[in-house]
Amino acid sequence: MAGAPVPADLTSTANPRVKALIRLRSHRRARVEAGSTLVEGHDELRLALQAGVRPTELYWAPSLARDEHRGLLDDVRATGARVTSVSRDVFDRIAYREGPDGWLAVVPDPGSAIADIVLGPRPLVLVAEGIEKPGNIGAMLRTAEACGVDAVIGASTVTDFGNPNAVRASKGTVFAVPVASAPSAEVLDWLRGHGVRIAVTTPAGTTALGDARLDGPVAVVVGAESTGVTDLWLDAADETVVIPMRGKVNSLNAATAGAVALFEANRQRH
Amino acid sequence: MAGAPVPADLTSTANPRVKALIRLRSHRRARVEAGSTLVEGHDELRLALQAGVRPTELYWAPSLARDEHRGLLDDVRATGARVTSVSRDVFDRIAYREGPDGWLAVVPDPGSAIADIVLGPRPLVLVAEGIEKPGNIGAMLRTAEACGVDAVIGASTVTDFGNPNAVRASKGTVFAVPVASAPSAEVLDWLRGHGVRIAVTTPAGTTALGDARLDGPVAVVVGAESTGVTDLWLDAADETVVIPMRGKVNSLNAATAGAVALFEANRQRH
Repeated sequence: MAGAPVPADLTSTANPRVKALIRLRSHRRARVEAGSTLVEGHDELRLALQAGVRPTELYWAPSLARDEHRGLLDDVRATGARVTSVSRDVFDRIAYREGPDGWLAVVPDPGSAIADIVLGPRPLVLVAEGIEKPGNIGAMLRTAEACGVDAVIGASTVTDFGNPNAVRASKGTVFAVPVASAPSAEVLDWLRGHGVRIAVTTPAGTTALGDARLDGPVAVVVGAESTGVTDLWLDAADETVVIPMRGKVNSLNAATAGAVALFEANRQRH
Repeated sequence: MAGAPVPADLTSTANPRVKALIRLRSHRRARVEAGSTLVEGHDELRLALQAGVRPTELYWAPSLARDEHRGLLDDVRATGARVTSVSRDVFDRIAYREGPDGWLAVVPDPGSAIADIVLGPRPLVLVAEGIEKPGNIGAMLRTAEACGVDAVIGASTVTDFGNPNAVRASKGTVFAVPVASAPSAEVLDWLRGHGVRIAVTTPAGTTALGDARLDGPVAVVVGAESTGVTDLWLDAADETVVIPMRGKVNSLNAATAGAVALFEANRQRH
């Protein structure tokens, strides 16, 4: 009946499933242990489905979800996910966005083991070292996906790719491009084992971006927001690359530096 | 005497100056009327000073400010600013950052009237239409400054350049590059009056970025985060420019799109 309240399956905020969802949201370790993360919001979940994600669970709040979004229910059910309706109270507890819209899914964590990443014959890889801000990780993933990279590797990152805010900022791309995290030394070994040239972006670089050799198998390495790349990467670099700047302050956002370098790589490759 | 508490000049949160500072922080209209905005934080204020900003007022909390930061006091006094020490309570009211460090200054609002912007003989301008997120405005300003643009123009923007979070995200660059805001139609007239070519970035563009003519007097136009550029700009464009993408999702952040286009312009110009 139109407008009639739908009784929800799950109405107690003390339910252990509610606590498990909050742990997934809040703790990287919980995400790694479960091999899962969360996607919140109708539009974000649509993007994830389009990228091929198969949710394991869907929580939705009939009292919050807009009528025109309910088609998502069948699409998620079709992936085999367990669907649970929840009360407004429960949804407010499990939601992490301001202004929740009543949709939250548990999905496989987007990270792989680095050993499982498969590279093409002339790989282009983005290595992000020590990045902290979920928004920057999301922006880098969008750029990397748009540049058709083989993989995005987090080296000694503070924030995991499955961080719900990074997932959100990535606009679905975290599920569309292979990603892995590992300590820097391990990433370095893996790149060398695959014959991938290491091009490290740094304001102290000796090669101007336009002169850097980015047309072969190459990893573009960007450093943390405040401190840049560490000595480990500078010492290991086959080339240190400086982005030519013409201002006085010359302060580029880490995600911007990565974008400019990746698009230059694509310019050289196509 | 080392460690002795310093009595503060201003200790009442009911003081009208406290209310005026909160208005400056919260309301674009208050900033426009006063011709002022706020810069919070020792490092941010240092960056602003380096960019030539002359604060009119400094508020600092002796109970919060770190000893090694106190050299800033003399540097700000040297600009002629009125210096007021405040109690912890007062600082907590006027601060807008989490984890305030005890430094807040009132500075001239970074925006000019568009008519007052002076262009060089072969101008490069960034036009940002309708941008909402202060973080994106800040990132664009950093990129634009690094690319040596003549000006960044906000066209029908939701957020002003003086928005304290945009100021902060710009890392001082908002004071180092000429900025102005105006309705789109006015911006368009101004560009045409100065003989500036209009290159609008859009996924529906007909010219690939590398083939776009960006070496002359040109404005690179980027649209709002969610909706892109409006028809007004598409209709007015001398060239619609598409950034070649090689992924499946192909979703670029607005600030990233602007950065890739501006660096391509610089590649063509130098």
